[in-house]
Amino acid sequence: MKKQKQILIILIASFIIGILSTGIVLSEEMKKPAVKYPDGYRDWTHVKSMVIQQGHPLYDSFGGIHHIYANQKALESMKGGKPYPDGAVLIFDLLEAKSENNSIVEGPRKVVGVMQKDSKKFANTGGWGFEGFKGDTKERVVSDPKGDCFACHEAKKQTHYVFSDYPK
Amino acid sequence: MKKQKQILIILIASFIIGILSTGIVLSEEMKKPAVKYPDGYRDWTHVKSMVIQQGHPLYDSFGGIHHIYANQKALESMKGGKPYPDGAVLIFDLLEAKSENNSIVEGPRKVVGVMQKDSKKFANTGGWGFEGFKGDTKERVVSDPKGDCFACHEAKKQTHYVFSDYPK
Repeated sequence: MKKQKQILIILIASFIIGILSTGIVLSEEMKKPAVKYPDGYRDWTHVKSMVIQQGHPLYDSFGGIHHIYANQKALESMKGGKPYPDGAVLIFDLLEAKSENNSIVEGPRKVVGVMQKDSKKFANTGGWGFEGFKGDTKERVVSDPKGDCFACHEAKKQTHYVFSDYPK
Repeated sequence: MKKQKQILIILIASFIIGILSTGIVLSEEMKKPAVKYPDGYRDWTHVKSMVIQQGHPLYDSFGGIHHIYANQKALESMKGGKPYPDGAVLIFDLLEAKSENNSIVEGPRKVVGVMQKDSKKFANTGGWGFEGFKGDTKERVVSDPKGDCFACHEAKKQTHYVFSDYPK
Protein backbone atom coordinates (compact mmCIF):
# COMPACT_ATOMS: atom_id res chain seq x y z
CA MET A 1 0.00 0.00 0.00
CA LYS A 2 2.88 2.38 0.86
CA LYS A 3 4.50 1.77 -2.53
CA GLN A 4 1.19 2.30 -4.35
CA LYS A 5 0.75 5.60 -2.52
CA GLN A 6 4.28 6.68 -3.52
CA ILE A 7 3.58 5.84 -7.19
CA LEU A 8 0.31 7.76 -7.03
CA ILE A 9 2.06 10.82 -5.59
CA ILE A 10 4.75 10.65 -8.32
CA LEU A 11 2.08 10.35 -11.01
CA ILE A 12 0.10 13.29 -9.68
CA ALA A 13 3.28 15.39 -9.32
CA SER A 14 4.35 14.56 -12.89
CA PHE A 15 0.90 15.50 -14.14
CA ILE A 16 1.01 18.86 -12.35
CA ILE A 17 4.55 19.58 -13.60
CA GLY A 18 3.41 18.66 -17.12
CA ILE A 19 0.45 21.03 -16.99
CA LEU A 20 2.60 23.83 -15.57
CA SER A 21 5.36 23.54 -18.16
CA THR A 22 2.87 23.39 -21.05
CA GLY A 23 1.35 26.55 -19.62
CA ILE A 24 4.76 28.26 -19.51
CA VAL A 25 5.54 27.27 -23.11
CA LEU A 26 2.12 28.47 -24.31
CA SER A 27 2.38 31.80 -22.53
CA GLU A 28 5.91 32.32 -23.94
CA GLU A 29 4.49 31.55 -27.39
CA MET A 30 1.72 34.08 -26.91
CA LYS A 31 4.17 36.72 -25.70
CA LYS A 32 6.38 36.26 -28.81
CA PRO A 33 5.84 39.25 -31.15
CA ALA A 34 3.67 38.13 -34.01
CA VAL A 35 4.48 40.79 -36.61
CA LYS A 36 7.80 40.01 -38.30
CA TYR A 37 10.41 42.59 -39.29
CA PRO A 38 9.83 43.03 -43.06
CA ASP A 39 13.25 42.05 -44.40
CA GLY A 40 13.87 43.30 -47.95
CA TYR A 41 10.84 45.61 -48.08
CA ARG A 42 12.87 48.34 -49.81
CA ASP A 43 12.79 46.19 -52.94
CA TRP A 44 9.00 45.72 -52.82
CA THR A 45 6.74 47.83 -55.02
CA HIS A 46 6.49 51.47 -54.01
CA VAL A 47 2.81 52.42 -53.94
CA LYS A 48 2.84 56.16 -53.19
CA SER A 49 4.29 58.84 -50.92
CA MET A 50 3.03 61.75 -48.84
CA VAL A 51 4.48 64.57 -46.74
CA ILE A 52 2.78 65.34 -43.40
CA GLN A 53 3.60 68.86 -42.23
CA GLN A 54 3.26 70.90 -39.05
CA GLY A 55 -0.41 71.71 -38.44
CA HIS A 56 -1.67 68.38 -39.81
CA PRO A 57 -3.64 66.41 -37.18
CA LEU A 58 -1.22 63.48 -37.52
CA TYR A 59 1.95 65.59 -37.38
CA ASP A 60 2.97 64.52 -33.88
CA SER A 61 2.77 60.83 -34.75
CA PHE A 62 3.63 60.81 -38.45
CA GLY A 63 5.24 64.15 -39.38
CA GLY A 64 7.75 63.74 -42.22
CA ILE A 65 7.75 62.06 -45.63
CA HIS A 66 6.41 58.53 -45.81
CA HIS A 67 6.49 55.90 -48.52
CA ILE A 68 4.04 53.01 -48.79
CA TYR A 69 5.43 49.67 -50.02
CA ALA A 70 3.45 46.48 -50.73
CA ASN A 71 4.60 42.89 -51.04
CA GLN A 72 3.27 40.86 -54.00
CA LYS A 73 0.18 39.52 -52.17
CA ALA A 74 -0.78 42.93 -50.86
CA LEU A 75 -0.17 44.60 -54.22
CA GLU A 76 -2.50 42.27 -56.12
CA SER A 77 -5.30 42.89 -53.60
CA MET A 78 -4.75 46.63 -53.61
CA LYS A 79 -4.76 46.86 -57.41
CA GLY A 80 -7.86 44.66 -57.69
CA GLY A 81 -9.67 46.22 -54.70
CA LYS A 82 -10.00 42.71 -53.25
CA PRO A 83 -9.71 41.49 -49.64
CA TYR A 84 -6.12 40.91 -48.55
CA PRO A 85 -5.05 37.26 -48.12
CA ASP A 86 -3.02 36.06 -45.14
CA GLY A 87 0.62 36.87 -45.82
CA ALA A 88 -0.10 40.27 -47.35
CA VAL A 89 2.21 42.94 -45.88
CA LEU A 90 2.10 46.72 -46.22
CA ILE A 91 4.85 49.10 -45.11
CA PHE A 92 4.62 52.71 -43.96
CA ASP A 93 8.25 53.89 -44.14
CA LEU A 94 8.48 57.24 -42.34
CA LEU A 95 11.52 59.48 -42.82
CA GLU A 96 12.23 62.97 -41.59
CA ALA A 97 11.36 65.64 -44.18
CA LYS A 98 14.03 68.33 -44.38
CA SER A 99 13.29 71.70 -46.02
CA GLU A 100 16.23 72.86 -48.14
CA ASN A 101 16.33 75.72 -50.64
CA ASN A 102 12.62 75.49 -51.59
CA SER A 103 12.63 71.74 -51.70
CA ILE A 104 11.83 68.89 -49.33
CA VAL A 105 14.37 66.09 -49.09
CA GLU A 106 14.48 62.87 -47.12
CA GLY A 107 16.18 62.78 -43.73
CA PRO A 108 16.88 59.85 -41.37
CA ARG A 109 14.30 57.09 -40.91
CA LYS A 110 11.87 57.64 -38.02
CA VAL A 111 9.92 54.40 -38.03
CA VAL A 112 9.06 51.42 -40.24
CA GLY A 113 5.35 50.76 -39.77
CA VAL A 114 4.11 47.29 -40.70
CA MET A 115 0.65 45.82 -41.35
CA GLN A 116 0.79 42.04 -41.63
CA LYS A 117 -2.35 40.09 -42.53
CA ASP A 118 -3.16 36.97 -40.53
CA SER A 119 -6.89 36.65 -40.06
CA LYS A 120 -6.63 34.17 -37.17
CA LYS A 121 -3.77 35.69 -35.16
CA PHE A 122 -5.11 39.22 -35.45
CA ALA A 123 -8.86 38.62 -35.45
CA ASN A 124 -9.28 41.42 -32.89
CA THR A 125 -7.88 44.09 -35.24
CA GLY A 126 -9.52 43.33 -38.56
CA GLY A 127 -7.15 40.47 -39.34
CA TRP A 128 -4.17 42.82 -39.46
CA GLY A 129 -1.19 42.82 -37.10
CA PHE A 130 0.30 46.28 -36.54
CA GLU A 131 3.88 47.00 -35.48
CA GLY A 132 6.45 49.78 -35.73
CA PHE A 133 10.24 49.42 -35.75
CA LYS A 134 12.18 52.44 -34.54
CA GLY A 135 14.49 54.12 -37.07
CA ASP A 136 16.92 51.66 -38.62
CA THR A 137 16.62 49.27 -35.67
CA LYS A 138 14.38 46.31 -34.91
CA GLU A 139 13.17 47.87 -31.65
CA ARG A 140 9.40 47.49 -31.43
CA VAL A 141 7.40 50.62 -30.61
CA VAL A 142 3.72 49.58 -30.70
CA SER A 143 2.47 48.50 -27.30
CA ASP A 144 -1.27 48.73 -28.00
CA PRO A 145 -2.06 47.84 -31.64
CA LYS A 146 -5.79 48.22 -31.08
CA GLY A 147 -5.60 51.71 -29.57
CA ASP A 148 -2.50 53.00 -31.38
CA CYS A 149 -3.26 51.72 -34.89
CA PHE A 150 -6.57 49.97 -35.41
CA ALA A 151 -8.56 52.82 -33.82
CA CYS A 152 -7.87 54.83 -37.00
CA HIS A 153 -7.68 51.99 -39.53
CA GLU A 154 -11.07 50.71 -38.39
CA ALA A 155 -12.74 53.60 -40.25
CA LYS A 156 -11.45 52.16 -43.55
CA LYS A 157 -13.42 48.91 -43.31
CA GLN A 158 -14.69 49.34 -46.88
CA THR A 159 -11.11 49.15 -48.20
CA HIS A 160 -10.21 46.27 -45.86
CA TYR A 161 -8.70 48.64 -43.24
CA VAL A 162 -6.10 50.00 -45.70
CA PHE A 163 -5.78 53.76 -46.31
CA SER A 164 -3.77 53.73 -49.54
CA ASP A 165 -4.99 52.83 -52.98
CA TYR A 166 -2.63 52.13 -55.86
CA PRO A 167 -2.32 55.14 -58.17
CA LYS A 168 -2.39 54.51 -61.90
CA MET B 1 27.12 42.99 -127.41
CA LYS B 2 23.62 44.46 -127.03
CA LYS B 3 22.66 41.79 -124.49
CA GLN B 4 25.90 42.30 -122.55
CA LYS B 5 25.15 46.04 -122.38
CA GLN B 6 21.62 45.33 -121.12
CA ILE B 7 22.97 43.04 -118.38
CA LEU B 8 25.52 45.67 -117.37
CA ILE B 9 22.80 48.33 -117.11
CA ILE B 10 20.64 46.01 -114.97
CA LEU B 11 23.61 45.23 -112.71
CA ILE B 12 24.47 48.90 -112.23
CA ALA B 13 20.82 49.81 -111.61
CA SER B 14 20.48 47.02 -109.03
CA PHE B 15 23.66 48.19 -107.34
CA ILE B 16 22.40 51.78 -107.12
CA ILE B 17 18.98 50.65 -105.83
CA GLY B 18 20.76 48.48 -103.27
CA ILE B 19 22.89 51.35 -102.01
CA LEU B 20 19.90 53.69 -101.83
CA SER B 21 17.66 51.28 -99.93
CA THR B 22 20.43 50.44 -97.44
CA GLY B 23 20.82 54.18 -96.90
CA ILE B 24 17.09 54.56 -96.27
CA VAL B 25 17.05 51.66 -93.79
CA LEU B 26 20.11 53.03 -91.96
CA SER B 27 18.72 56.54 -91.72
CA GLU B 28 15.37 55.16 -90.45
CA GLU B 29 17.33 53.15 -87.89
CA MET B 30 19.21 56.24 -86.79
CA LYS B 31 16.02 58.27 -86.56
CA LYS B 32 14.37 55.58 -84.40
CA PRO B 33 14.33 56.77 -80.78
CA ALA B 34 17.04 54.95 -78.91
CA VAL B 35 15.72 55.27 -75.35
CA LYS B 36 12.95 52.71 -74.76
CA TYR B 37 9.81 53.33 -72.73
CA PRO B 38 10.59 51.68 -69.35
CA ASP B 39 7.75 49.15 -69.15
CA GLY B 40 7.14 47.90 -65.62
CA TYR B 41 9.34 50.49 -63.90
CA ARG B 42 6.76 50.98 -61.11
CA ASP B 43 7.79 47.57 -59.79
CA TRP B 44 11.51 48.41 -59.79
CA THR B 45 13.23 49.43 -56.57
CA HIS B 46 12.29 52.87 -55.29
CA VAL B 47 15.49 54.73 -54.44
CA LYS B 48 14.28 58.02 -52.90
CA SER B 49 11.88 60.92 -53.37
CA MET B 50 12.01 64.72 -53.29
CA VAL B 51 9.59 67.63 -53.52
CA ILE B 52 10.66 70.64 -55.63
CA GLN B 53 8.72 73.75 -54.67
CA GLN B 54 8.11 77.22 -56.06
CA GLY B 55 11.29 79.30 -55.74
CA HIS B 56 13.63 76.33 -56.40
CA PRO B 57 15.84 76.93 -59.47
CA LEU B 58 14.45 73.77 -61.11
CA TYR B 59 10.79 74.52 -60.32
CA ASP B 60 9.79 75.40 -63.89
CA SER B 61 11.16 72.14 -65.26
CA PHE B 62 10.71 69.75 -62.34
CA GLY B 63 8.27 71.30 -59.85
CA GLY B 64 6.28 68.60 -57.98
CA ILE B 65 7.13 65.38 -56.19
CA HIS B 66 9.47 62.98 -57.92
CA HIS B 67 10.44 59.39 -57.22
CA ILE B 68 13.65 57.75 -58.42
CA TYR B 69 13.46 54.08 -59.46
CA ALA B 70 16.35 51.84 -60.53
CA ASN B 71 16.38 48.57 -62.44
CA GLN B 72 18.53 45.73 -61.06
CA LYS B 73 21.67 46.66 -63.02
CA ALA B 74 21.44 50.31 -62.03
CA LEU B 75 20.69 49.48 -58.39
CA GLU B 76 23.78 47.32 -57.95
CA SER B 77 26.00 50.07 -59.37
CA MET B 78 24.36 52.76 -57.29
CA LYS B 79 24.68 50.77 -54.05
CA GLY B 80 28.29 49.85 -54.78
CA GLY B 81 29.29 53.30 -56.15
CA LYS B 82 30.48 51.53 -59.30
CA PRO B 83 30.23 52.59 -62.98
CA TYR B 84 26.88 51.68 -64.55
CA PRO B 85 26.93 48.82 -67.08
CA ASP B 86 25.08 49.00 -70.40
CA GLY B 87 21.44 48.16 -69.74
CA ALA B 88 21.24 50.09 -66.47
CA VAL B 89 18.11 52.27 -66.38
CA LEU B 90 17.12 55.00 -63.92
CA ILE B 91 13.69 56.64 -63.74
CA PHE B 92 12.72 60.12 -62.59
CA ASP B 93 8.94 59.84 -62.12
CA LEU B 94 7.55 63.36 -61.69
CA LEU B 95 4.03 63.89 -60.30
CA GLU B 96 2.20 67.05 -59.38
CA ALA B 97 2.49 67.86 -55.66
CA LYS B 98 -0.83 69.02 -54.20
CA SER B 99 -0.98 70.85 -50.87
CA GLU B 100 -3.91 69.66 -48.78
CA ASN B 101 -4.61 70.37 -45.11
CA ASN B 102 -0.94 70.77 -44.11
CA SER B 103 0.20 67.84 -46.17
CA ILE B 104 1.57 67.27 -49.66
CA VAL B 105 -0.03 64.49 -51.69
CA GLU B 106 0.63 63.12 -55.15
CA GLY B 107 -1.28 64.50 -58.13
CA PRO B 108 -1.30 63.41 -61.79
CA ARG B 109 1.93 62.33 -63.50
CA LYS B 110 3.79 65.13 -65.30
CA VAL B 111 6.62 63.23 -66.96
CA VAL B 112 8.53 59.95 -66.77
CA GLY B 113 12.21 60.82 -67.20
CA VAL B 114 14.52 58.00 -68.29
CA MET B 115 18.29 57.54 -68.25
CA GLN B 116 19.33 54.44 -70.20
CA LYS B 117 22.99 53.38 -70.27
CA ASP B 118 24.48 52.38 -73.62
CA SER B 119 28.08 53.52 -73.82
CA LYS B 120 28.29 53.19 -77.62
CA LYS B 121 24.93 54.68 -78.67
CA PHE B 122 25.16 57.60 -76.27
CA ALA B 123 28.92 58.24 -76.26
CA ASN B 124 28.22 61.99 -76.68
CA THR B 125 26.34 62.25 -73.41
CA GLY B 126 28.44 60.26 -70.97
CA GLY B 127 27.12 56.92 -72.22
CA TRP B 128 23.58 57.76 -71.05
CA GLY B 129 20.53 58.23 -73.27
CA PHE B 130 18.02 60.75 -71.89
CA GLU B 131 14.31 60.84 -72.67
CA GLY B 132 11.06 62.05 -71.14
CA PHE B 133 7.58 60.63 -71.68
CA LYS B 134 4.72 63.05 -71.13
CA GLY B 135 2.26 62.20 -68.34
CA ASP B 136 0.84 58.72 -68.73
CA THR B 137 1.56 58.66 -72.47
CA LYS B 138 4.49 57.50 -74.56
CA GLU B 139 4.87 60.92 -76.19
CA ARG B 140 8.53 61.90 -76.22
CA VAL B 141 9.43 65.34 -74.92
CA VAL B 142 13.24 65.59 -75.08
CA SER B 143 14.43 67.09 -78.36
CA ASP B 144 17.97 67.98 -77.29
CA PRO B 145 19.32 65.45 -74.76
CA LYS B 146 22.71 67.16 -74.64
CA GLY B 147 21.35 70.64 -73.90
CA ASP B 148 18.20 69.67 -71.98
CA CYS B 149 19.64 66.90 -69.77
CA PHE B 150 23.36 66.27 -70.02
CA ALA B 151 24.24 69.95 -69.52
CA CYS B 152 23.28 69.46 -65.84
CA HIS B 153 24.20 65.78 -65.40
CA GLU B 154 27.70 66.47 -66.76
CA ALA B 155 28.58 68.09 -63.42
CA LYS B 156 28.10 64.72 -61.68
CA LYS B 157 30.93 62.98 -63.53
CA GLN B 158 32.34 61.64 -60.26
CA THR B 159 29.13 59.68 -59.64
CA HIS B 160 28.90 58.54 -63.27
CA TYR B 161 26.51 61.40 -64.20
CA VAL B 162 23.88 60.27 -61.68
CA PHE B 163 22.51 62.69 -59.07
CA SER B 164 20.93 60.20 -56.64
CA ASP B 165 22.67 57.92 -54.25
CA TYR B 166 20.91 55.02 -52.52
CA PRO B 167 19.96 55.91 -48.96
CA LYS B 168 20.58 53.33 -46.26
